[in-house]
Amino acid sequence: MTEKEKMLVGRLYDPSDSQLVRMRLHARRMTSQFNQVPANDKSMRGQILKSLFKVTGEKIYIESNFRCDYGVHITVGENFYANFDCVILDAAEVTIGNNCLIGPQVGIYTSTHPLNPKERSSGLELARPVTIGNNCWIGGHAILNPGVTLGHNVVVASGAVVTKNFGDNVVIAGNPARVIKEIAPNADY
Amino acid sequence: MTEKEKMLVGRLYDPSDSQLVRMRLHARRMTSQFNQVPANDKSMRGQILKSLFKVTGEKIYIESNFRCDYGVHITVGENFYANFDCVILDAAEVTIGNNCLIGPQVGIYTSTHPLNPKERSSGLELARPVTIGNNCWIGGHAILNPGVTLGHNVVVASGAVVTKNFGDNVVIAGNPARVIKEIAPNADY
Amino acid sequence: MTEKEKMLVGRLYDPSDSQLVRMRLHARRMTSQFNQVPANDKSMRGQILKSLFKVTGEKIYIESNFRCDYGVHITVGENFYANFDCVILDAAEVTIGNNCLIGPQVGIYTSTHPLNPKERSSGLELARPVTIGNNCWIGGHAILNPGVTLGHNVVVASGAVVTKNFGDNVVIAGNPARVIKEIAPNADY
Repeated sequence: MTEKEKMLVGRLYDPSDSQLVRMRLHARRMTSQFNQVPANDKSMRGQILKSLFKVTGEKIYIESNFRCDYGVHITVGENFYANFDCVILDAAEVTIGNNCLIGPQVGIYTSTHPLNPKERSSGLELARPVTIGNNCWIGGHAILNPGVTLGHNVVVASGAVVTKNFGDNVVIAGNPARVIKEIAPNADY
Repeated sequence: MTEKEKMLVGRLYDPSDSQLVRMRLHARRMTSQFNQVPANDKSMRGQILKSLFKVTGEKIYIESNFRCDYGVHITVGENFYANFDCVILDAAEVTIGNNCLIGPQVGIYTSTHPLNPKERSSGLELARPVTIGNNCWIGGHAILNPGVTLGHNVVVASGAVVTKNFGDNVVIAGNPARVIKEIAPNADY
Repeated sequence: MTEKEKMLVGRLYDPSDSQLVRMRLHARRMTSQFNQVPANDKSMRGQILKSLFKVTGEKIYIESNFRCDYGVHITVGENFYANFDCVILDAAEVTIGNNCLIGPQVGIYTSTHPLNPKERSSGLELARPVTIGNNCWIGGHAILNPGVTLGHNVVVASGAVVTKNFGDNVVIAGNPARVIKEIAPNADY
């Protein structure tokens, strides 16, 4: 297996592998360029994201500064919006449904490291996919940890630290995040 | 009512309204320019903020990168300072008193969305004003949620998530923020 | 004592002192320049950090945007890495051991202010050193408060707010951070 293949199936991998370095440098160049495009040039901003991400819908807008590791592991559905200073570490797949809103200063992290200090200092890393359903709203300054799955119609309160999975139709808040409210499920969604 | 008027009185409004888009693009251009001005050009940095905000005192300094949505809904009192990477979403009025300090990586949010996923995906939004009294210090990485009012002499600990109102002379901390200490009230303030 | 000397020994100091202003402007210029250097120019990025920081190892990489106040009060050991949008307020010494990893959107703060509003509005400030041992991993969006010391092999979970000292071989999480797991100590480290 290549290091990229190991990374994508959740095994320990070496991020200094030349293919991975090349992929990350490409994403750094694209996001640097993206972050300089004036806010009124929606067409160019959308074009760069569509070229960088694995899959997007027709309608996508992200504010500056946006950061990601690879870009090519990010799938977002139709009608996607992310506010200022969003960081997505997409060493594993990040899959986001339709009609999702991401607040400012949010972190979506797939990258993790061994807990054992000796293993960790080897430089080998791990990644776990993050999945978000349709019609989700991730509040400002919230964090999604590696491996987390959120269902449909989930609202993550601002500042929440999401450390485990949650199903459909809930509002979650706190550190660590817990359900604080149920949302009436909506048969049409 | 125009969409702008609806926004400012707390009713559902359409952020894609052409007047609002124009106002936000103006703020994006101003903040982009602001964030490029060298730190030693205090005069130019202050001038841009005074031109962008609704009201400021004579003495105002904000570090780069600063982000806001409109700028014209932000009032800050005399002797205002905000540290690195502050985000203020000022769809509603943000009113900050005299002698206030904002730490790095802080988020002040007035923008919110309907909880119901069907309503939310209509794209209509809501905004609730944020008000901060005199002599407040908002610690690094703290968040103020839409609708929150803080009294005078309030210290918000770093990383606090402020979800409700607090009166004068308290230190608040945690997620959600709670009072952790009373500050001796100071008759002169 | 000069204001710089007061700052470094933890006494109230005046940040508007001309020597301190000059030092901060130097750091602003260096970090502005650093944040513009393309990600593939590791040599130039490393060179700027080695020139800005007090002490570094041979191997150091920090992603853009990096922000600090002085730079010259930051010591990092061998094999240091910090991810996107890290803020280090180094009014007091920030000392980080070997083989440390810092996640994205992290804040390491040494700067603090008097709690009493009258004292605080004098503009005088305080700083308390932050110390991190070897083989530590600070998760994304975590905060270290002024005066905090972490031992060796400490893992700070994403979103943790570290308000007090912790010894070796622990995982800490939450707001405020508490020990959630012990790590088997590793005699070789």
